[in-house]
Amino acid sequence: MDLKPSPLALPFPDMPPIAGVTLRVSQARYKNWANDPERADLTYVELTEGTGVAGVFTTSACASSEVELGREQVKAGSARALIVNAGNSNAFTGYRGREAVEQIMTQVAGRLGCNKGEVFVSSTGVIGVPLPKDKAREGVSKALEADPCGWEDAANAIGTTDTFAKGAHASAVVDGKTVHLCGFIKGSGMIAPDMATMLGYIFTDAAVAPAFLQQLLSDANGQTFSCITVDGDTSTSDTVLAFATGAAGNTSLASFDSAGADAFAAALTDVCRQLAQLVVRDGEGATKLITIRVTGAASDESARRVGMSIANSPLVKTAIAGEDANWGRVVMAVGKAGEPADRDRLSIAFGGTWTARDGLPVEGYDEAPVAAHLKGAEIDIEVDLGLGEGRATVWTCDLTHGYISINADYRS
Amino acid sequence: MDLKPSPLALPFPDMPPIAGVTLRVSQARYKNWANDPERADLTYVELTEGTGVAGVFTTSACASSEVELGREQVKAGSARALIVNAGNSNAFTGYRGREAVEQIMTQVAGRLGCNKGEVFVSSTGVIGVPLPKDKAREGVSKALEADPCGWEDAANAIGTTDTFAKGAHASAVVDGKTVHLCGFIKGSGMIAPDMATMLGYIFTDAAVAPAFLQQLLSDANGQTFSCITVDGDTSTSDTVLAFATGAAGNTSLASFDSAGADAFAAALTDVCRQLAQLVVRDGEGATKLITIRVTGAASDESARRVGMSIANSPLVKTAIAGEDANWGRVVMAVGKAGEPADRDRLSIAFGGTWTARDGLPVEGYDEAPVAAHLKGAEIDIEVDLGLGEGRATVWTCDLTHGYISINADYRS
Repeated sequence: MDLKPSPLALPFPDMPPIAGVTLRVSQARYKNWANDPERADLTYVELTEGTGVAGVFTTSACASSEVELGREQVKAGSARALIVNAGNSNAFTGYRGREAVEQIMTQVAGRLGCNKGEVFVSSTGVIGVPLPKDKAREGVSKALEADPCGWEDAANAIGTTDTFAKGAHASAVVDGKTVHLCGFIKGSGMIAPDMATMLGYIFTDAAVAPAFLQQLLSDANGQTFSCITVDGDTSTSDTVLAFATGAAGNTSLASFDSAGADAFAAALTDVCRQLAQLVVRDGEGATKLITIRVTGAASDESARRVGMSIANSPLVKTAIAGEDANWGRVVMAVGKAGEPADRDRLSIAFGGTWTARDGLPVEGYDEAPVAAHLKGAEIDIEVDLGLGEGRATVWTCDLTHGYISINADYRS
Repeated sequence: MDLKPSPLALPFPDMPPIAGVTLRVSQARYKNWANDPERADLTYVELTEGTGVAGVFTTSACASSEVELGREQVKAGSARALIVNAGNSNAFTGYRGREAVEQIMTQVAGRLGCNKGEVFVSSTGVIGVPLPKDKAREGVSKALEADPCGWEDAANAIGTTDTFAKGAHASAVVDGKTVHLCGFIKGSGMIAPDMATMLGYIFTDAAVAPAFLQQLLSDANGQTFSCITVDGDTSTSDTVLAFATGAAGNTSLASFDSAGADAFAAALTDVCRQLAQLVVRDGEGATKLITIRVTGAASDESARRVGMSIANSPLVKTAIAGEDANWGRVVMAVGKAGEPADRDRLSIAFGGTWTARDGLPVEGYDEAPVAAHLKGAEIDIEVDLGLGEGRATVWTCDLTHGYISINADYRS
């Protein structure tokens, strides 16, 4: 990793291998990694035959070729390999970028004897420079021959300006068998200097029908990756893929009527939430992880939008950086969200202490626990809109001089 | 003014008096103005009988009582007075805040012998503290007796964390008579530390029917105040009012069929644009004024939204602060706008030099004029979406360490 680890970093967890998943990394040298010239920047994951796949992708109208292709590939539901390139996002590179992706798909499919469409490719890094085909070809060749490696090696190899490797796992009992889910992710803000993208991958040995896996991943995404923000900016390449090898031997999960489906869904959401929070913990310049719980909204989606309006407000985020329980800025952010809200029913708490209730400041509330809470590294804000039953939780980080330094002072 | 003037500050212009408009200021001492204890913080504008009024207000769902009342008052179309309180926004103060506003309306209406609804009130400053009625009553009493003052005095008195006084004027020939429009405004970002709000006031001696004045002000607002952003945060109190005294004696403008209506509309839009740009020039921490022109959009409104997505992107704004022609971040901001866009038709220019065309970087473009342009204080970004005829221009400022210092390091 290039930079000093985030103060909010967590150690990489112990994660079991997933049967049917083999990890390898190599050096494609897509860029000059000045701080770590020997680091791997190409990741190759081989998946056993019969592996199902699902994916969620950026909503950007300017998505990369990788994303355009990936959106189509997941529809067939079958995967044999994943290649992740770090150091070049291959975004905004037109037909030349697309050719590079297709070359990788062809090269790997030739080796595995599978369909091209079963080879998934992601790229992250500079925008506007076509992925160099020669480096890609050589890097893939080396990866195909490399010794298998562990989760943390792969998590490191997909990083760009990430300051620590990010992984998560969970397990569930399905059809009498314990199945495992392991994931890793990169991202440190929606975009780092000239870099881009949140890329996340989850692997399970459970057998899950691709259509049902897609449903579960989309649901989990709505509660996790769609509920985090660092700076409100959205990459052209954001991708989360879930792969189910089926090696655990359970009867394939096809719907919520399948035994163990609920347990598997909960474990998948758990892994997604852990991974999402790790991205916020590596937010550029972050010193505090902020959890915003919105209740009493007109609907869950309305609650999420209000939460994201607060989480994206520069004034709220700078106030938290300054350890200031500035509920007036929270009111402002609720008001601008464009969602149903009634000033005179609004209540706001910091760290469990209500500072405003029903549209009025709480007179004489105890400021000591609020001040102590704000000095910590994990900040809780609760907002009750007092209107309905809708609720959501979103996560963000504070906005500090570090963010400005990373994005303005450092030049690419 | 409390702070060192913005490097983008402009001198206050010479502005003629407007017949039918009398300005006075007084000290209500709504807060302890540490850097300028003798400054005026209450502004009283007396308007001649028969003055028409129009207004545009914040879209916040948590608006202040002043805004709630103002939205109703403009419907009647008639104004005799304006009171502006600086240092306390009276927002999020429930029934007590409303009582304070009604007290001011009653006090001034009693003096002028007019309807309460003809007295407009605005307030800007801390949120969550009801405007103190005793200070308001005494401040209004003093203002009613004060000697008339000039535009710059009034522009200073409505400021909070503004670093310079902001005024603009224009004139037009209507019905054979030269009419004048003079305006002043406050705002330095959507919100300053615990402060809030853009408040703007425009006065003209032209006779304009209130309904037509409202139409013209709403149109002008859509091209000016709705096209600026400092941090994407929206105050609970934003207000722009236009007052037409009719003292110039022209036949009242009632529609675009009236002689001179087009000239008057152009002058009104001109004043609004000048005032809007002055707010951006005083943006918290601003060192560069950024003008973003979007063409080739599906519609004008779509162009405005794409422009605002770019203007609100922390990554674009930090890149400009760093004098980096980072068109990849502009692509990102176009992509996330949620508006029609086609990556492969997108073109981007800095200071008139096209760096990307039709979805590909322009190879070998001349970087020297781009680098020179980015070192200046006024930055032009052009984005051609290549789809349709829609166009819009929006304005913002860069995002610097100064913004963080003002909003996080300084404590209220």
